[in-house]
Amino acid sequence: MTAQLATKSAFVTGATGFIGSHLTAHLRNAGWRVGILARPETIEKNGLRRAGAVYAYRGLTDEVIDAVTDFRPDVVFHLASLFLVAHSPEQIVALVQSNVLFGTQLLEGMSQAGCTALVNAGTAWQNYTPEPPFDSQNYMPVNLYAATKQAFEDIAAFYVESAGLRLVTLRLFDTYGPGDKRRKLVRLLIDTLMTGQPLEMSPGDQTLDLVHVEDICRAFLHAGKLTMARSEAGAKVFAVGSTPRLTLRQVVATFEEAAQRKLPIEFGKRPYRSPEVMHPWEGPALPGWEPTISLLDGIRNVIAQELG
Amino acid sequence: MTAQLATKSAFVTGATGFIGSHLTAHLRNAGWRVGILARPETIEKNGLRRAGAVYAYRGLTDEVIDAVTDFRPDVVFHLASLFLVAHSPEQIVALVQSNVLFGTQLLEGMSQAGCTALVNAGTAWQNYTPEPPFDSQNYMPVNLYAATKQAFEDIAAFYVESAGLRLVTLRLFDTYGPGDKRRKLVRLLIDTLMTGQPLEMSPGDQTLDLVHVEDICRAFLHAGKLTMARSEAGAKVFAVGSTPRLTLRQVVATFEEAAQRKLPIEFGKRPYRSPEVMHPWEGPALPGWEPTISLLDGIRNVIAQELG
Repeated sequence: MTAQLATKSAFVTGATGFIGSHLTAHLRNAGWRVGILARPETIEKNGLRRAGAVYAYRGLTDEVIDAVTDFRPDVVFHLASLFLVAHSPEQIVALVQSNVLFGTQLLEGMSQAGCTALVNAGTAWQNYTPEPPFDSQNYMPVNLYAATKQAFEDIAAFYVESAGLRLVTLRLFDTYGPGDKRRKLVRLLIDTLMTGQPLEMSPGDQTLDLVHVEDICRAFLHAGKLTMARSEAGAKVFAVGSTPRLTLRQVVATFEEAAQRKLPIEFGKRPYRSPEVMHPWEGPALPGWEPTISLLDGIRNVIAQELG
Repeated sequence: MTAQLATKSAFVTGATGFIGSHLTAHLRNAGWRVGILARPETIEKNGLRRAGAVYAYRGLTDEVIDAVTDFRPDVVFHLASLFLVAHSPEQIVALVQSNVLFGTQLLEGMSQAGCTALVNAGTAWQNYTPEPPFDSQNYMPVNLYAATKQAFEDIAAFYVESAGLRLVTLRLFDTYGPGDKRRKLVRLLIDTLMTGQPLEMSPGDQTLDLVHVEDICRAFLHAGKLTMARSEAGAKVFAVGSTPRLTLRQVVATFEEAAQRKLPIEFGKRPYRSPEVMHPWEGPALPGWEPTISLLDGIRNVIAQELG
């Protein structure tokens, strides 16, 4: 067998998002052939045409079937989603189309193309745990975004039965890393560090679970290999979390240690969210994977990239 | 309190379908005020404008919000769905839009309007039970249609948490009755009776569960009252099935008894479906309801209407 034939191939949705862009680079660095499905405007904006196997999606099921059939991936990484902490009524259509319809089209495309290995990005918010046991497998969504993620898994269950789908869903917590433009905690702290403007926060006693994007990429790659090596159809769910978990206050203190500067954070000036996840889910960990980048090192790395 | 003030009001989706049209008539006969949401072409085709509170739906979330807000129902009966035993790729978009997106818009509309009582039509095919225990609560979809029904329920779970939704889902089995144009078993037997053409069937040993549409309407009305009387948010699931259950061969024999004629049925000329439900789900029965129309009486009634 030549090296060429041994090359693994991965099809990635959401490849221009924060995790997706890191994952495609990670896969290419590891020698994988990578195919991408994206909206035409996303392809233009990101200059993806140069990137090789890039397929356009305008909303048609046939586009997805044709793309997967043409590329014939060993495994599909499904990261595309519309993320909303809270939705407004005018976002309902986009939320269902992005998080349920597109995923169903992807499953149909894989089924038609005979591709059966799928690693899916879920969220720990599908298993909201207001009280113990925190490792409950019960579904309880924090928000509509999490509910649409669960809806996708429900639909995937049909393809497990009918098409032999081998599905691994990684339930993600908070993620961070260089190049993150999402208005999440680490981004807000970087902005506060740069501007010196006071930042109002909740009381800060909620527990967080932050994983560096490079560790997330390693989790996806590892899950992809596990899925490809599996012979039986089925759906598995794993948590991709960190140890030890810290409270929001402790994360801010870690950031201040990394920045060697005290930040003007005003704890308690804002209420907790409703609902606020005070204790994130404690689901089964992805076997054979653990995070390697400590929060202190990870934040130092982000600060260096942003301010360097 | 005057009689006017005591009138109950129900908002019905899928009101022009087989069950929906019987249910709206049933509700009106029982003195209920009925509101309907339907596509403009459905409104035209069925001459619904005369029917009173009729709202048009072209796909927009705002149309659903405005309709529910304007009508202010005591309870919503959600029967609209695209039913497919097996799907083809070009039906994926319509399936997700009809069975997931529209339902989500309805939940959002109810949430915005402060309506919290919902009776939803589910299917026993969400709980496919290839082997005992047949009363398992585990979700396993027979087909993509059933998977989209489950997806809707999991999206509804968010509105239970966030908007105090009181949801009852009735898992339906097979239904039949006068005016049924769907190409289902009783319809096929009527056609065979009228034409005398041989009808090829599977071996016929699968157990069926047939409920007359008038009994189904009574189940919905009863579930609506139960839901309205409930004070706590939550989601409940009940089976709406018959006793005794019969095999396909026994149902055909009952039809022949009702018709007083032997039908040219060729059992075993067709294979079972893949998958074939040999033993329907045995879920928790809707409390306080049971079917009143025997299969023999029900089929006699349908034959009389069709041939009368």
